[in-house]
Amino acid sequence: MNKPETPIAVVILAAGQGTRMRSDTHKVLHPIAGRGMLLHLLDTVDELGAERKVVVVGKGREQVEAAVAAHGATIAVQAEQKGTGHAVQMAEAALAGFAGTVIILYGDTPFVGTETLRRMAARLEQPDAPGVAVLAFTPPDPAAYGRVILGEGDRIARMVEYKDASAEERAVTLCNSGMMAVRSADLFRWLGAVGNDNAAGEYYLPDVVMVADREGRSAVAIEAGAGETGGVNSRRELAGLELEWQRRRRQEAMDGGVTLIDPDSVWFAHDTVLGRDVTIEPHVFFGPGVSVGDGVAIRAFSHLEGATIASGAEVGPFARLRPGAVLGEKSKVGNFCEVKKAELGPGAKVNHLTYIGDASVGAKANIGAGTITCNYDGFGKYRTEIGAGAFIGSNSALVAPVRIGAGAIVGAGSVITRDVEVDSLAVARGEQRGLAGWAKRFRERMTGRKAG
Amino acid sequence: MNKPETPIAVVILAAGQGTRMRSDTHKVLHPIAGRGMLLHLLDTVDELGAERKVVVVGKGREQVEAAVAAHGATIAVQAEQKGTGHAVQMAEAALAGFAGTVIILYGDTPFVGTETLRRMAARLEQPDAPGVAVLAFTPPDPAAYGRVILGEGDRIARMVEYKDASAEERAVTLCNSGMMAVRSADLFRWLGAVGNDNAAGEYYLPDVVMVADREGRSAVAIEAGAGETGGVNSRRELAGLELEWQRRRRQEAMDGGVTLIDPDSVWFAHDTVLGRDVTIEPHVFFGPGVSVGDGVAIRAFSHLEGATIASGAEVGPFARLRPGAVLGEKSKVGNFCEVKKAELGPGAKVNHLTYIGDASVGAKANIGAGTITCNYDGFGKYRTEIGAGAFIGSNSALVAPVRIGAGAIVGAGSVITRDVEVDSLAVARGEQRGLAGWAKRFRERMTGRKAG
Amino acid sequence: MNKPETPIAVVILAAGQGTRMRSDTHKVLHPIAGRGMLLHLLDTVDELGAERKVVVVGKGREQVEAAVAAHGATIAVQAEQKGTGHAVQMAEAALAGFAGTVIILYGDTPFVGTETLRRMAARLEQPDAPGVAVLAFTPPDPAAYGRVILGEGDRIARMVEYKDASAEERAVTLCNSGMMAVRSADLFRWLGAVGNDNAAGEYYLPDVVMVADREGRSAVAIEAGAGETGGVNSRRELAGLELEWQRRRRQEAMDGGVTLIDPDSVWFAHDTVLGRDVTIEPHVFFGPGVSVGDGVAIRAFSHLEGATIASGAEVGPFARLRPGAVLGEKSKVGNFCEVKKAELGPGAKVNHLTYIGDASVGAKANIGAGTITCNYDGFGKYRTEIGAGAFIGSNSALVAPVRIGAGAIVGAGSVITRDVEVDSLAVARGEQRGLAGWAKRFRERMTGRKAG
Repeated sequence: MNKPETPIAVVILAAGQGTRMRSDTHKVLHPIAGRGMLLHLLDTVDELGAERKVVVVGKGREQVEAAVAAHGATIAVQAEQKGTGHAVQMAEAALAGFAGTVIILYGDTPFVGTETLRRMAARLEQPDAPGVAVLAFTPPDPAAYGRVILGEGDRIARMVEYKDASAEERAVTLCNSGMMAVRSADLFRWLGAVGNDNAAGEYYLPDVVMVADREGRSAVAIEAGAGETGGVNSRRELAGLELEWQRRRRQEAMDGGVTLIDPDSVWFAHDTVLGRDVTIEPHVFFGPGVSVGDGVAIRAFSHLEGATIASGAEVGPFARLRPGAVLGEKSKVGNFCEVKKAELGPGAKVNHLTYIGDASVGAKANIGAGTITCNYDGFGKYRTEIGAGAFIGSNSALVAPVRIGAGAIVGAGSVITRDVEVDSLAVARGEQRGLAGWAKRFRERMTGRKAG
Repeated sequence: MNKPETPIAVVILAAGQGTRMRSDTHKVLHPIAGRGMLLHLLDTVDELGAERKVVVVGKGREQVEAAVAAHGATIAVQAEQKGTGHAVQMAEAALAGFAGTVIILYGDTPFVGTETLRRMAARLEQPDAPGVAVLAFTPPDPAAYGRVILGEGDRIARMVEYKDASAEERAVTLCNSGMMAVRSADLFRWLGAVGNDNAAGEYYLPDVVMVADREGRSAVAIEAGAGETGGVNSRRELAGLELEWQRRRRQEAMDGGVTLIDPDSVWFAHDTVLGRDVTIEPHVFFGPGVSVGDGVAIRAFSHLEGATIASGAEVGPFARLRPGAVLGEKSKVGNFCEVKKAELGPGAKVNHLTYIGDASVGAKANIGAGTITCNYDGFGKYRTEIGAGAFIGSNSALVAPVRIGAGAIVGAGSVITRDVEVDSLAVARGEQRGLAGWAKRFRERMTGRKAG
Repeated sequence: MNKPETPIAVVILAAGQGTRMRSDTHKVLHPIAGRGMLLHLLDTVDELGAERKVVVVGKGREQVEAAVAAHGATIAVQAEQKGTGHAVQMAEAALAGFAGTVIILYGDTPFVGTETLRRMAARLEQPDAPGVAVLAFTPPDPAAYGRVILGEGDRIARMVEYKDASAEERAVTLCNSGMMAVRSADLFRWLGAVGNDNAAGEYYLPDVVMVADREGRSAVAIEAGAGETGGVNSRRELAGLELEWQRRRRQEAMDGGVTLIDPDSVWFAHDTVLGRDVTIEPHVFFGPGVSVGDGVAIRAFSHLEGATIASGAEVGPFARLRPGAVLGEKSKVGNFCEVKKAELGPGAKVNHLTYIGDASVGAKANIGAGTITCNYDGFGKYRTEIGAGAFIGSNSALVAPVRIGAGAIVGAGSVITRDVEVDSLAVARGEQRGLAGWAKRFRERMTGRKAG
């Protein structure tokens, strides 16, 4: 119902130095749940349907530019660190010709919600037409955040830095998140009027509230939901935000019919999809791109990325599924097995110490322990195709490109270099020879004495 | 001392829909510590020595019936959801001819203790002969639980639903667990007098307290211990109860002389047995049926089920022991090794990337890295027998049924299909051939240029 | 600035029975972060520059003596359990001829800091020349600790056991850690004057404060930092102190530029060295002796001990690095791989199901899945040398001692027993043979009917 009608543009500030991260990676690209913070934010902005997206960067422009390319965001550069107000000014050129609402966000504060952003923009459209909608929040410990002092209703009487706040003002728990919505027609005019008469000599974005007031335009506070305003300045805070995200996701999973024996030891990615009646044992890690069907069991110590798992399949313990692993219904990938770019048919079994890469495994095929698809020759990757119902004896090497026909059997310990016909047996191993008493003599030689 | 003298029957209510679990598995069969909640409860009831055990189910009768078969419990069916009082009435036929104390429990509240149940039953035998013994508890947050208002001593003045409670009554922290003990001679008469004049039109079990009072019979409160009354209506609560259980078990383990470097990451099963001076590294998962001797080290990332481990053995890291794994004294199962239905003699070593299934390994035998016992031909399972002191070269496949004699040596990379004599050497591999310069020419061909 | 000028000797009491540990290992040798508590304490004492170090033991002398040998500490024996005062007296002979400050510590209280010990010693050198400097602390819950009642400044008015304390004294939160500093010239004279007129008939070390007072010498309290006075009497407390240590270390790691996605599931050793921009996935265990360069990724489920990892390398998931593993820049050790006593050159890849032991792998060499270096013949260990740029086909066994020349290729499934020349191809496998229709007939025979 709060759907705003004016077009929206978003300016994301990402020009901070991020010194406390002690990293060569730009702060806003550090991942949470396997996805860079800035990209989480751009996902939200895309859901919002923003017409323009401008990311203001300082150092590390190239990293950020490459990361946001797929989102069609424009990069603006703030060459000097002159404050958040100045940073937003750097987006002016990129917003040329845009008329509507500009929402200012922070690349290191990734989890503000679409609905909250809609409320901010919609508030500007209400009859009393405030000039600024500031996103405020009420942290458990307001500590040193700037306070938002309300007047009547949601009207902001004033905003005050913690250090400048009176005891009475400090007792207020409503805080300024820094995020705000302003009409484009007002934003840059007001920013132009913001001064830098302060200790740091910087231009502060929140000062537009003061400037708007001088024009007789009001500012209002929109209250954020829990967890929407958490920001990251250090790796401790990154870990803190990751943990918050994971806790929410685990609760959602359980509410959706997933058993997590030990919720705290299961790590999801931003895009993990889980069916109903899935059971996940302790100590499981999901990288991006995993989809799990109904009734699947993911056993302990499994590591999954880019895998699609059909209903009734069983994975692990100690399974490693890599991108392109597609597991059919009731198929099974067991311990110390890796599957990569390979489809397993329904009921196929890959149970022990096996590497299946660049391959297809037919329905109900059984891959013996220690089987390796030799898919790489140092230059290219080649495919192995194993037919339905085939049986690959343990410790075999299948040298790709190679096909094992449906129903064929490969003898244990074989190195298969040529195609194997349907329903045939293939064996490739040396003859067994024996030397009676040799072991005894060897031990005597090695120990320098007759064995007992 | 509180040992009751009258025979005991137990009625376990398990007719709830369990909708919030979002599962095809009956709620009371969801496991904690690897064992269904209802089965935990039946274990307690068996310890109590109950003469009859009736489980009242609604939907999912077949699942429950199959699960409790081994416990000799009778199933009664409540076809319609008409309340807990009505559910207990469904057990009447199954209790025909029984004279004694009936204790009513809940299938989703699995951890009430034997001693507490004894106290409930024994209380009915005391001289003042109360009609009902209600199990009450004092939760940290009484929230919306029904309150138990005491009169003199342990006499219950009244029980009141939270929604009907006055402010004064809500201030009382003693709550009704729903569990109770009543003489069989009274129970069904009183249940017959319970009405359904309430919003849901259901017959409520706690109303027997009121009915008893009309006959001049009192109800008393028995107080439960911590953790005895936790129930499960959702997967979040299931995870919560699992965690409580694990915490208790970890403390017990440490008190008994087990080092848990990271107690929070070790998951025990309901029947795990641990010796003294056992050390368990972080991230270890015990499935059911594991017994660990004194002085054993279980290293990180190990997954154990149905295994018996003798004193001084070392397991992991990354070991997978499956049912029937029996490890002898000072034997060792190392990384990326799986052992299933196999006995390892004292001092035997299985250290790297190995699968031992359906086998026996003699004392001090050494199984090289990458060894596979090929125990399955797609139809049957066959045994491998490895004698004491044998040495299996790395990357060998032992094709069962096969015997390796004591003291024999198998050359690395062999595929052994026939028995190997005591103290002999067996080798089965291809001859090594070389093609000088081939690799260089191959690279030139693949890269389309002369290698540098 | 508080650097003391007098020489320091340290007496560490380690004569307690440790009964609650239920262990055959001496209590002070139970490890935290992979190092015995007593050794942590001796590391601190060595950093302090103590001239003499005496460890007073009761039972288990041999274990302790062996453990401290490398630290050059003297062992003194307290044959009978006659209290802490008596235990310190047992160190008198070992301190013969020493003139300076004696600091008394406890082997089960391992994390007192060097700076704190310096403050204790330095305090005795200040103009008011107190006789005793007692280390005091303010626990969150003072419980039953003995209280330290201060007079003027840091002067101790009296010390009182909890059981003897008045209500007013119990309200004091400053507690006695038991650690103290006393001049050697005073210590043994005062200890000689301590009586054993108490219920246990023991000589208590804190009583020297009283004796000193009789000589007109004062005692002062030095306050310990958080976490410095935690002691261990049970495995629960051992786990508690381990967790505290790990939490500090994880925070340090993050502050130093390491991403810990799940800090709570990463376990460091006492000597783990971590570079900048290292990323550690959940569930990683560091044993002692690991050094990690800049930009390294340690993926989930990795277990590392005694390994040196150069910058840009990638480890895991499911990697096992054992002592002597040296990973070159941008090298990679992937899933289900174990590396032991082996150097990997820059860019070398060991990606799947492989065991590399007693080996060197040249730069950019590629080791195929399932490769095993066969380094052991039951008696000795032998080396495998793999040249730069070599390519080892999957599922190969390299029987050491053996050399694979630079740029050579080994065919998949080969057992290599002789050296392979530079740039050549080596293959050692059986010929592939086929039996058309055999598999179909086999299935018919096994199932007793014609296959469908």
